[in-house]
Amino acid sequence: MSSSNRRSNGNRGFVRDIADKNADFPQWYTDVILKSEMVDYAPVRGCMVIRPYGFAIWERIQHLLDARFKATGHTNAYFPLFIPESFLRKESEHFEGFDPEVAWVTHGGGEQLTERLAVRPTSETVVCTMYAKWIQSYRDLPVLINQWSNVVRWERSTRPFLRTMEFLWQEGHTAHRTEEDAEAETLLILDLYRDFVESDMAIPVLSGRKSESEKFAGALRTYAIEALMTDGQALQAGTSHNLGQHFAEVFDIKYLDDDGQLKKVWQTSWGVSTRLIGALVMVHGDERGLCLPPRIAPYEVVIVPIQPKAAREQVLREARAVRDQLRGHFRTHLDDREGQSPGWKFNEWELRGVPVRLEIGPRDVQQEQVTVVRRDTGDKVALPRLDLVDGLQELLAAIQSDMYQRALAYRRERTRDVGSVEDLSAMLAAGGGFGRAGWCGDEACEANIKARTGATIRILATEEDPSGLTCLVCSSPARHVGYFARAY
Amino acid sequence: MSSSNRRSNGNRGFVRDIADKNADFPQWYTDVILKSEMVDYAPVRGCMVIRPYGFAIWERIQHLLDARFKATGHTNAYFPLFIPESFLRKESEHFEGFDPEVAWVTHGGGEQLTERLAVRPTSETVVCTMYAKWIQSYRDLPVLINQWSNVVRWERSTRPFLRTMEFLWQEGHTAHRTEEDAEAETLLILDLYRDFVESDMAIPVLSGRKSESEKFAGALRTYAIEALMTDGQALQAGTSHNLGQHFAEVFDIKYLDDDGQLKKVWQTSWGVSTRLIGALVMVHGDERGLCLPPRIAPYEVVIVPIQPKAAREQVLREARAVRDQLRGHFRTHLDDREGQSPGWKFNEWELRGVPVRLEIGPRDVQQEQVTVVRRDTGDKVALPRLDLVDGLQELLAAIQSDMYQRALAYRRERTRDVGSVEDLSAMLAAGGGFGRAGWCGDEACEANIKARTGATIRILATEEDPSGLTCLVCSSPARHVGYFARAY
Repeated sequence: MSSSNRRSNGNRGFVRDIADKNADFPQWYTDVILKSEMVDYAPVRGCMVIRPYGFAIWERIQHLLDARFKATGHTNAYFPLFIPESFLRKESEHFEGFDPEVAWVTHGGGEQLTERLAVRPTSETVVCTMYAKWIQSYRDLPVLINQWSNVVRWERSTRPFLRTMEFLWQEGHTAHRTEEDAEAETLLILDLYRDFVESDMAIPVLSGRKSESEKFAGALRTYAIEALMTDGQALQAGTSHNLGQHFAEVFDIKYLDDDGQLKKVWQTSWGVSTRLIGALVMVHGDERGLCLPPRIAPYEVVIVPIQPKAAREQVLREARAVRDQLRGHFRTHLDDREGQSPGWKFNEWELRGVPVRLEIGPRDVQQEQVTVVRRDTGDKVALPRLDLVDGLQELLAAIQSDMYQRALAYRRERTRDVGSVEDLSAMLAAGGGFGRAGWCGDEACEANIKARTGATIRILATEEDPSGLTCLVCSSPARHVGYFARAY
Repeated sequence: MSSSNRRSNGNRGFVRDIADKNADFPQWYTDVILKSEMVDYAPVRGCMVIRPYGFAIWERIQHLLDARFKATGHTNAYFPLFIPESFLRKESEHFEGFDPEVAWVTHGGGEQLTERLAVRPTSETVVCTMYAKWIQSYRDLPVLINQWSNVVRWERSTRPFLRTMEFLWQEGHTAHRTEEDAEAETLLILDLYRDFVESDMAIPVLSGRKSESEKFAGALRTYAIEALMTDGQALQAGTSHNLGQHFAEVFDIKYLDDDGQLKKVWQTSWGVSTRLIGALVMVHGDERGLCLPPRIAPYEVVIVPIQPKAAREQVLREARAVRDQLRGHFRTHLDDREGQSPGWKFNEWELRGVPVRLEIGPRDVQQEQVTVVRRDTGDKVALPRLDLVDGLQELLAAIQSDMYQRALAYRRERTRDVGSVEDLSAMLAAGGGFGRAGWCGDEACEANIKARTGATIRILATEEDPSGLTCLVCSSPARHVGYFARAY
């Protein structure tokens, strides 16, 4: 942590300095997530402890996503943490993709095991084993199951939320009667993710297909949503895989169709993880710390009483009355800690990104108003006590929308057509972003771009027409419109 | 599965036979949990797959308990799955207690690890490591954190929900300034558990302290709630531990008090697990299968349309209208599957324990009523459509209360004073239950009873006066009133 990159953003002895975002983005990120007490390093290499404030954000994500899954007919279940090695080996492409990242249990109950158990890196193989047993008839389809769980991938280089050895996620696993049904589910979830991340997290995303080299190990096709961080790098925020019949074949998942034929099911799997919290920090955070969109914020509103000695009790009484007034309308926290100055509290809650701060002092009490400060803009207005609920509702909706629009404007600024690999390189050197270009579909050209620029194809835009474009590398006619970026 | 113990409980070819509860309780239990599709055996020894219907019950438990935890000031967090061996070894009594049950990760990322990692059997050691870092001042206390997670214990003999190698649970970990605060928290949670299990799960419990031989490895004192299953065996349904300063000592968790002294914190930990689902089955289940109390049931109400050909559409339209009428009031499911008879559906939903079934046939439509059937008693009444919401509200409250009262009456019948070890033996042989008796406090007497009867002290009743009683074994004056039973 270099002290030259640090500045004090507080007053009256506020000590939670964070690095300058423009000068040292990675250190700024680390400072924000640690000092806001979202997360801490665990005593196990590459693992994180998600502290209550960070976990409350994850609970919001879970709550909102879970409701969307259930509204589209999915139910939750729980599959075991351990997967016998022989199961993981069944689908060879899948095994090769995950084997280097597996943590192996070799001993249990004081004895060496006869077969090693993988700590799940993902659950396709154990889920498919059960589906082979549960699915008999076309009447059993579709099976639409999701699981909220922890998974482990032995990563070499880790950063809290973005890439950790253990992380929390949800993984959906579905089985269908036809190819069309599976593709429709894959795209339904892709769009559910897009809408959740855009509407609730206020993060605009590009959505499309992955190239063969970037697809999930064992899948037929992988789709993803990609967001742009404010350092110009992309982050994969969610994936939805059409697994085709690859797993049904090796796990023998067959159903008796109404024509009397035994047929293999078509499957999908899809997931988002605690990585989303990292995206939230890097898209919306600023020089004062975290900045949370209202729908995701653990507290939408924090109340800070300003209590000169003479009006101490009167102000506190009013602050409590306001808290009671807001109950049932907003997730509200009254910061009535003693021994901390209002200025210290302002900084603390700005660091923690609470969308709206209410200040209540003697003058506010007298004028039957509350001073309202927006975290995202710093704008300050007075709202009459009587209209407070309506006023805040309107304000929070405006903040949610403005935060999305600002992030969208940033991404648009940083997304442009690039005509050559040199052009893409120059763009990446000048602050990053998405370069839009044609691609012939040849993996050699894709590898060439990666080697020369560090950028990968983040998505192939399935709804954009490549005709007229040429491949960025070989100049032959483009078969895809690709968005290229360096990525987390 | 012996066919002599089986009976068909269905009509019109309903095939989900379950074993006779009185003749073969263990087989009955297995039949109910498998055939109701709550759970399945996983392909890993001793592990279970919690299927959507079983998981929906766990979600109800989580939802209701989590609200209680939050209402008493607790927040959720997440600590890592892996615990380095050296951490687990720090508190020796704790290590000795858990070492035989640990699953060890020895390889990761293709390499052998320099230190083995335990898959958490419980998280005290990793939590304490973090608390030592987070807690500095008396202002940081109390710390009131809970975690919902999976844990692994390498059990020799397993049964779904009751004892599995991996299970889901919540574990609370708190740190306090004084011994009194820690004891108050321990008892607050014990009572929170008691009230939850009694009010929401309709299961009466005895609550009290564990003897030294039954306490949590590393704790100062363990408290527990104990329920009586309908085979006469007890089941520990939740534990709350006062850890004293045992862990604070070895993990060096100290705070600067307002008198300028550095002091060790006082700690608690507490948990309930997916085992509660097993208790639900064994307390309320009957010869028709599962019987769920309304507050825990995934569906409170199931609607089964009875559609003779002539009134097919009319009945279905009415069934949908009733479903819409109940929306927002009850967790309701309309079973409009085609190709299954109403009788088959009745059996299916009885097996799955849905508290109330609504039958809607042409006569009901005509008379603007719904036929309502209670799962717990089989009682059938007609309710007018207009009063349906109020009528069901009343009925569900009555079912919840009646189920508790029936379970309480059963436990009272099976709880009595025993005057000798022989008396206890005879009682256990004649159907089990709780034997209430004096105990001198000597571990030799406790071991003697266990060796001769198979019963253990389930709780020491801290609020009952032992004076006048003598020890069941040695006849010296009793220091405790104990409740003895054979237990899961």
